[in-house]
Amino acid sequence: MTINRQWLLARRPQGDVRPDDFRLAEGAVPVPQDGDVLVRSLFFGFDASQRIWLTDDGGYMPPIMPGEAMRCMGIGQVVESRNPDYRPGDLVEGFMSWQDYCLVRADGPMPLRHLPQADYPISWNLGVFGVGGLTAYFGVADGLKVGPGDTVVVSAATGATGSLAGQIARARGAKKVIGIAGGPEKCRWIVEQAGYDAAIDYRNDDLGAKLKELAPEGVNAYFDNVGGDMLDELFLHMAPRGRILICGAMSSGYTDVKLQGPANYMRICTHQLTVQGILLFFYADQIPQGAAQLGQWVAEGRIHVEENRQHGFEKAPELLPTLFSGKAPGKLVLHIADPV
Amino acid sequence: MTINRQWLLARRPQGDVRPDDFRLAEGAVPVPQDGDVLVRSLFFGFDASQRIWLTDDGGYMPPIMPGEAMRCMGIGQVVESRNPDYRPGDLVEGFMSWQDYCLVRADGPMPLRHLPQADYPISWNLGVFGVGGLTAYFGVADGLKVGPGDTVVVSAATGATGSLAGQIARARGAKKVIGIAGGPEKCRWIVEQAGYDAAIDYRNDDLGAKLKELAPEGVNAYFDNVGGDMLDELFLHMAPRGRILICGAMSSGYTDVKLQGPANYMRICTHQLTVQGILLFFYADQIPQGAAQLGQWVAEGRIHVEENRQHGFEKAPELLPTLFSGKAPGKLVLHIADPV
Repeated sequence: MTINRQWLLARRPQGDVRPDDFRLAEGAVPVPQDGDVLVRSLFFGFDASQRIWLTDDGGYMPPIMPGEAMRCMGIGQVVESRNPDYRPGDLVEGFMSWQDYCLVRADGPMPLRHLPQADYPISWNLGVFGVGGLTAYFGVADGLKVGPGDTVVVSAATGATGSLAGQIARARGAKKVIGIAGGPEKCRWIVEQAGYDAAIDYRNDDLGAKLKELAPEGVNAYFDNVGGDMLDELFLHMAPRGRILICGAMSSGYTDVKLQGPANYMRICTHQLTVQGILLFFYADQIPQGAAQLGQWVAEGRIHVEENRQHGFEKAPELLPTLFSGKAPGKLVLHIADPV
Repeated sequence: MTINRQWLLARRPQGDVRPDDFRLAEGAVPVPQDGDVLVRSLFFGFDASQRIWLTDDGGYMPPIMPGEAMRCMGIGQVVESRNPDYRPGDLVEGFMSWQDYCLVRADGPMPLRHLPQADYPISWNLGVFGVGGLTAYFGVADGLKVGPGDTVVVSAATGATGSLAGQIARARGAKKVIGIAGGPEKCRWIVEQAGYDAAIDYRNDDLGAKLKELAPEGVNAYFDNVGGDMLDELFLHMAPRGRILICGAMSSGYTDVKLQGPANYMRICTHQLTVQGILLFFYADQIPQGAAQLGQWVAEGRIHVEENRQHGFEKAPELLPTLFSGKAPGKLVLHIADPV
């Protein structure tokens, strides 16, 4: 009998998520019922939204309950299918969980997606062609409507989403792209690898003074992955009719859905700003065209793709907290197994 | 010699604005220079934004400095003009100040506007056809894009702007219009006079429970004049892709530009909400068509106009604080003099 390893939620985290919020279990390989697809895990992706799913509220999805396997975005190979759209051997991406074998239903808000034939690593379907890349794409293109002449700021600019958001803004003709990150090493990466025009080190620079210097006429579009004091400060530097995209709130660690609200939000009124959210669910029918555009930019060398690949099922719980602390640039993925 | 009475800012208010933040003075009638228009005051309007202009920051305009006459929106009659677009006798509306005679320049962000010939009281040009009404119109039509099927909530729904916002939403075909105000009397007015479908008394009702009951499928558009805890609660009741218009923050009394930020703002992300500001300056070239649409609705009896008219120059400082406390519904105006 094949053993199905599982990382189950041991208890709902209080504050920062910790490795011992999860416990290892072994179970039988689940048996698909009508409509189910049984998938063998190949890669797990790590996303800040996983912390939101661990709150009582769950955010935009049902909360993960203690005793359940931890939900993630993942890549897998179909083992058995009771859904006519999927066949054994198919490589797929979508909502999975921290198990060797997951039962997946294809009828959720983001149906299980077939991986395209391509000459890049399949794990990129969790990064630049996954939730992070597509969120960055629709956030910049549709939410912020970045175009020529715009001065754009991106926070958490070495993250899976942030590292792409600025490059997408640049590809769409932005005049100036500024990234914010913590520490000189990350800031160097933003400029040298991701090709941003400038970087601000929020740990060592005076954020307000730097913004004044780099964006003297104000910021037209701000891609916010951080929230907190940084969002507060950005409000003071937005140009009239500027746009802010709320993509995340890394500053909070997502320990609760109720966060520090932006105290300078009346700038929305006095400068007629637009603040918008981004949730990929609402773009489900446009994903192929978004992925195609990203693919073209990657092929043209206009987008640099960075992946932080780790190995081994057992590492999942210890990797999740590293999303919220200092970590390497790019998309964090965990390699579980190879396709057969 | 004609005496020009003036209410000057005596000191920058701390917290709530008080009548003794102003002092009475008398000066000479000012002499217009090139481009100036000398206007005799007929009506002063009262607007919450006056409190913002009194902060150190000023918000979206230069702050009023101690020793200066208090700025207001007003209606006046041209006495003398060094600007070819204005002639003695003309009735005009625009930025004025608490003086019998104001020097007005017509080249600001909102040029001095000629009053149209009409069969309604000229003071309505400060209310339904003034900043409040036009802000409500562009806020509902362009900012919130209210249309058929929308469930709309308006806070401070007896105020100069709020009392019109819901009626405009209704005129544009909203499915349900809900007003929020303090006390049973105001709530009765909202339904009986302003024709809202329902009212919520935030002092006596459980706001969250009432919103669930009245908007079980969520709120599509929220016209926010209040901010604070009320905005926080509304975030929890917005339908996916809902729109919020930030028009004001009465809960703060505008004692500072830095306010209580909305702690539930991550709903912007999880529900892909759009939060937008409204500043009439950006609609300067569309004002005639906005006023024409409002005029048509008023003529058709689809908009009920309420005015709270007071009399006497000496009352200006004591009336300003009443904007932020319980007051009568509709637009507060102070009658100074009649046209000649």
